[in-house]
Amino acid sequence: MRDFYPDQMALRNWLTDIWRSVSRRHGFHEYDSPILEYLDLYQAKSGDEIVEQLFHLTDRGGRELALRPETTPALARMISARANALARPIKWFSIARCCRAERPQRGRTREFFQWNLDVVGTDDLLADAECILAAADCLRQIGLHAQDVVIKISDRRLIAAIFEHLALPADRHQAAFAVLDKATRLSPDALAEMWSDSIGQVVPFAQVEPLLHIRTRADLQSTNWSVLKDPAVARHLEQVDRLFALLDRFGVADYCDFDARIVRSFAYYTGPVYEAFDRAESLRALLGGGRYDNLLALFGGPRMSGTGMGMGDVVILELLSDLKRLPATDQGVDIFLVDADPELFDRLLQLAGELRRSGFGCQFSYKRQSVSKQLAAASARGARRCAILGQETRLQNAVTVKDLTTGRQKQMPLAEFLTDPMKPLD
Amino acid sequence: MRDFYPDQMALRNWLTDIWRSVSRRHGFHEYDSPILEYLDLYQAKSGDEIVEQLFHLTDRGGRELALRPETTPALARMISARANALARPIKWFSIARCCRAERPQRGRTREFFQWNLDVVGTDDLLADAECILAAADCLRQIGLHAQDVVIKISDRRLIAAIFEHLALPADRHQAAFAVLDKATRLSPDALAEMWSDSIGQVVPFAQVEPLLHIRTRADLQSTNWSVLKDPAVARHLEQVDRLFALLDRFGVADYCDFDARIVRSFAYYTGPVYEAFDRAESLRALLGGGRYDNLLALFGGPRMSGTGMGMGDVVILELLSDLKRLPATDQGVDIFLVDADPELFDRLLQLAGELRRSGFGCQFSYKRQSVSKQLAAASARGARRCAILGQETRLQNAVTVKDLTTGRQKQMPLAEFLTDPMKPLD
Repeated sequence: MRDFYPDQMALRNWLTDIWRSVSRRHGFHEYDSPILEYLDLYQAKSGDEIVEQLFHLTDRGGRELALRPETTPALARMISARANALARPIKWFSIARCCRAERPQRGRTREFFQWNLDVVGTDDLLADAECILAAADCLRQIGLHAQDVVIKISDRRLIAAIFEHLALPADRHQAAFAVLDKATRLSPDALAEMWSDSIGQVVPFAQVEPLLHIRTRADLQSTNWSVLKDPAVARHLEQVDRLFALLDRFGVADYCDFDARIVRSFAYYTGPVYEAFDRAESLRALLGGGRYDNLLALFGGPRMSGTGMGMGDVVILELLSDLKRLPATDQGVDIFLVDADPELFDRLLQLAGELRRSGFGCQFSYKRQSVSKQLAAASARGARRCAILGQETRLQNAVTVKDLTTGRQKQMPLAEFLTDPMKPLD
Repeated sequence: MRDFYPDQMALRNWLTDIWRSVSRRHGFHEYDSPILEYLDLYQAKSGDEIVEQLFHLTDRGGRELALRPETTPALARMISARANALARPIKWFSIARCCRAERPQRGRTREFFQWNLDVVGTDDLLADAECILAAADCLRQIGLHAQDVVIKISDRRLIAAIFEHLALPADRHQAAFAVLDKATRLSPDALAEMWSDSIGQVVPFAQVEPLLHIRTRADLQSTNWSVLKDPAVARHLEQVDRLFALLDRFGVADYCDFDARIVRSFAYYTGPVYEAFDRAESLRALLGGGRYDNLLALFGGPRMSGTGMGMGDVVILELLSDLKRLPATDQGVDIFLVDADPELFDRLLQLAGELRRSGFGCQFSYKRQSVSKQLAAASARGARRCAILGQETRLQNAVTVKDLTTGRQKQMPLAEFLTDPMKPLD
């Protein structure tokens, strides 16, 4: 787990501020859930094996609780509880502290912050497109451009239609998705072996293999794989085209591509799915999302369709660090007050109180020391300007304002300074 | 534990935004620690009985962990780890999710958010005054004025000097502080009994009782209690006067008063201590703080003096609710886009993408429906204005902008609208 010293905290705030402002401008409202949930909420979705990956405890009342590893189950719980009162589509986001009891590795920490966007209560493809638009807008705002990253999109209904065409029984689809989910990480041989272990010969691996070579929209357009001509498959391809058309209208097509290998590991996805990667593919996914038509029902809620996206802080910050694009965070102070004479210190404290109450960042030395030492302290604190109280304050109620960026300085009446303390000096 | 639906989340964000901006303008830098800490970190400070009040667990590696109930131990741990590298005074703040395994009651929830301000590495009384100034500035910003709330201040060194004057042995001081800490909550008789159980007759209760009647600065000035004339006691009274003089310079004396009954429950306080209450005293403390000279050493760190203040979200929001002063939080949207003709929907999506990327909140109906239904949806979403795409868009590349607050509307070229979408309509 990570300590956040002020430098790291400034970076985390920079990222969460972007998440929050991007969410709001795309019309999402923020929610949050407790950090502790009943353990069985996660078991409902992911089975018992999830318990191993959770920090869990039994409280004094004998309740089995877990630190949340994600917020989707809580979202389902909260929306289910008020399903009838909420105007649809429900567009919510959260910025959630989450924990996983895993061994830390590159891109994974035991504690992390996760941005979640969800649109619930509609099966309109616009909702999927809006989540992808917001994700791309966020990447751009972070400083990651279309040449740096790509959102790879597929559709589970399309892949399911292909499975059906190949006569894979419906009860084998989840197992087949689970194999496909490894396609970007395993060698072709390892993948073939996994397929044959998991699916057997009812559909030989060779029959699905062409799918794994469709990794871009260009591949999709140029392939002559006959399976795609099946009318049921073609109908889902049209939906994929429609999604890309929407993303084009929204102005983010350059961030997006098709990749048939993207199916997402969660079993609850039922429609469009996507993950974003750095173009060099040096890191795990930067974000992931997709449509879930049965998720709320899984938590005892109503049958409501939804679609959502999640992005963690760890991989994004690693990529920015690798690219040497971490932002400079300004921890400086607006105004540093200096007294040329300890007898003016009372006036200085009064001015400090006034400036701070007016909303300006203001600092001063606790020790009474020479003007040059106080100016050095101002520089060390990253002050943008100094206001010096001296003879002119006593005689004329004036201060000398010094801009530490330009070096300019100017004497002005205190009243004028207080009207607009950060006004540029001419 | 609380779910935060968007209305409640907006309120929480309103409060934490104030905490953050107040902290920054008073020159504090933000830090954060993990939500899980080693259990023994809390045992070091508060003994074994704390374990009962914590959510704690044993992870797969056999480590005993606890969800943090506060951040002061983590602050001490983090500062100790970098004590030599940090410029002093160290002025840090945090806004921390914390958990306590207590029975919920008015003003207390199992999960809460806590604002902490600390100045470490100085024993200057200015640091105490700065924390109280920031607390008062925050109360004012929240909308709680000096007639609503009061910060009651005392000094443990003063009280300890009184104990010494009364010949209370040093090893009984903590026990005596613990009794005094109940003085605002217990009846005089119950308090006398607690004193006699805990301290015995070495110093009879009657000898300290006058202290409990000094509840304001006016009481302090008018009392003729002889104990206060002891030179050692008088020296500490001078420090109290100096603190109030600093608060007066800072412009927050109206928020502050003296109250000898305030000693704080944590044993680690060693100097000025304070708690704020609503004037009607209907709720528990709104905030509390004080100086701790040995806290870092307690966690194995260096001998560094510090002073700090903490404020939770629960009591503050209850008080605002009681006073009917909870703020209205605006969940509306800047611009709602409307098309008068479904064929213009592609243009609408393009405009939505552009506006959002430019930083404006923008919404639209997923369903293609009549203009009046779309306008109704805009109102329901709290839109500030609508931009309507119609015949004028097709023919003149213009939109009709309607201000939903004033009812004014105006047709303008799309390019002009995009330059400043929220420009007032004349």
